[in-house]
Amino acid sequence: MSGDLGPRVVIAAALELLDSIPELQLILVGDQGQLEPLLALAQISPDRLRIHHAPDRVSMDDEPLSALRHKKTSSMWVALELVRDDQAQACVSAGNTGALMAMSRHLIKTLPGIDRPAICKSMPVAEGRSLMLDLGANLECTPEQLQQFAHMGSVLARATGDTQPKVALLNIGIEENKGTEVLQAAHRLLREDQRLNYVGFIEASDILAGRVQVIVCDGFSGNVALKASEGVARLIRQKMREAFQRSFWRKLLAVCASPVLRQLSVELNPAAYNGASFLGLHKIVVKSHGSADQRAFAQALRVAIEQVSQKIPERIAAQL
Amino acid sequence: MSGDLGPRVVIAAALELLDSIPELQLILVGDQGQLEPLLALAQISPDRLRIHHAPDRVSMDDEPLSALRHKKTSSMWVALELVRDDQAQACVSAGNTGALMAMSRHLIKTLPGIDRPAICKSMPVAEGRSLMLDLGANLECTPEQLQQFAHMGSVLARATGDTQPKVALLNIGIEENKGTEVLQAAHRLLREDQRLNYVGFIEASDILAGRVQVIVCDGFSGNVALKASEGVARLIRQKMREAFQRSFWRKLLAVCASPVLRQLSVELNPAAYNGASFLGLHKIVVKSHGSADQRAFAQALRVAIEQVSQKIPERIAAQL
Repeated sequence: MSGDLGPRVVIAAALELLDSIPELQLILVGDQGQLEPLLALAQISPDRLRIHHAPDRVSMDDEPLSALRHKKTSSMWVALELVRDDQAQACVSAGNTGALMAMSRHLIKTLPGIDRPAICKSMPVAEGRSLMLDLGANLECTPEQLQQFAHMGSVLARATGDTQPKVALLNIGIEENKGTEVLQAAHRLLREDQRLNYVGFIEASDILAGRVQVIVCDGFSGNVALKASEGVARLIRQKMREAFQRSFWRKLLAVCASPVLRQLSVELNPAAYNGASFLGLHKIVVKSHGSADQRAFAQALRVAIEQVSQKIPERIAAQL
Repeated sequence: MSGDLGPRVVIAAALELLDSIPELQLILVGDQGQLEPLLALAQISPDRLRIHHAPDRVSMDDEPLSALRHKKTSSMWVALELVRDDQAQACVSAGNTGALMAMSRHLIKTLPGIDRPAICKSMPVAEGRSLMLDLGANLECTPEQLQQFAHMGSVLARATGDTQPKVALLNIGIEENKGTEVLQAAHRLLREDQRLNYVGFIEASDILAGRVQVIVCDGFSGNVALKASEGVARLIRQKMREAFQRSFWRKLLAVCASPVLRQLSVELNPAAYNGASFLGLHKIVVKSHGSADQRAFAQALRVAIEQVSQKIPERIAAQL
């Protein structure tokens, strides 16, 4: 029921994926009164797509602890219960991140060996694929928690194609003596850990270079790196639009250049990377960006589907 | 003597500014044997530009404490001594940042009321002007240190044109309850501080929006935000080059579009923002990026010149 664009986006994305993935089944959790009319024209069998009613919803400004206490009939809570009770294998939500994490930890709980789940996303890298975690669930971390993130990220990277994913710790320099005491201690832990392909520190300017497959950081730094990147991309897009609008000649140029610019836009489009996983829980929970359109939400669904296919929670449990 | 491109860049930038600023006088500190030949053809009077010999130099991998002990005849040390002894009003260096900060704190010392100096830079914002500090000198900060940064940034912003600069704390969300305990405490301190125009938290995605004139953060977060931004800009430039090279038609398009692309390149060019100030010292010290070309190094010189004109250290001392 969340997301700036409301349930229509979710439903459109759902129908798109049901069409391309025959074995997929989806449950839409939310206000039956609002959802039923939106499904009325969809030619889809109820055993592939059904509505599970939930009368309440978490709002974007609900405090996590408050949501835990007062939103037990919200679509978010009910959806997570369905996952806890194995009526679904994953939950995807565009709603309040803090509430989603608090409810997930409460209802679905964390795997043994994991202190706290981390929020993990794919980064739009120059080559290959890179994952980064934590992106905001744990603002300050112990060295052991950073080590757990390294393992979870490696498991996900291996399950999705990288045989010996390189792991690096986000730092303000690559030299061994750089960074806080926690980073120094984490560096020593990871260096000794034979199960990890740890390559040392990485600076934030190299996150998108694609030379490292798993980038580990505390949630504050990860969130700052991610949002700073989004801010720059947004500014550049704005400047490009302005630059190409400044005169008739330029607008003409923009028309000619549009296939190129559009391709760029696709390659750098955050929507293609929508879908942040809560790694470390017993079951799969994926958070979509609140402003996601159909394409972006469909991507978040794909992230969840891939993790279901690859049995990510079981693999993480086996690793630790 | 530092910088990837060596003394030629510094000298070229020096000559450029001596030409446009009649009251400017510069001292080049370094190896006389290397510098004299480079100045041979320059038509400039020695009372405007002279060489001060220093036999040694700090290397890029020197540890700060080691440099303090063993590099007392380096150009960096000697230049800072000249500033300390009022033979110069500012020092600009492209060398080892850690060593420059350690030597500055040792030789020039910090102003009363300031625990530790902060590294501060202008950000390439959509509108107006924004300063951000700390960018790496102090990895973890107390709330009081963040408050001092807020004051130093405000002083610099006011001296360079903003009458009531808005100050914000970098955080992972704008809601009052977001962030670490240190940020919460800093928030309360700044909110009570009548001398500051404190507007609350700011997310990293809004650093370049230009709505806030002073962005305050600990050195780790600031460094991550800055470097992440640089990484994205670099990736986008690379992708644009690739996109426009893919075929003959596209190369032709690139030629037509080149004035537009070049203008964009100028607007977003980090060189235009080169020059990080060490705020909080008794005298002015500015750090240039190591890879600076003439244009960028000239910008770093201008940053120092502006702070000398505006008597920034005296204003900071008066504020606290």
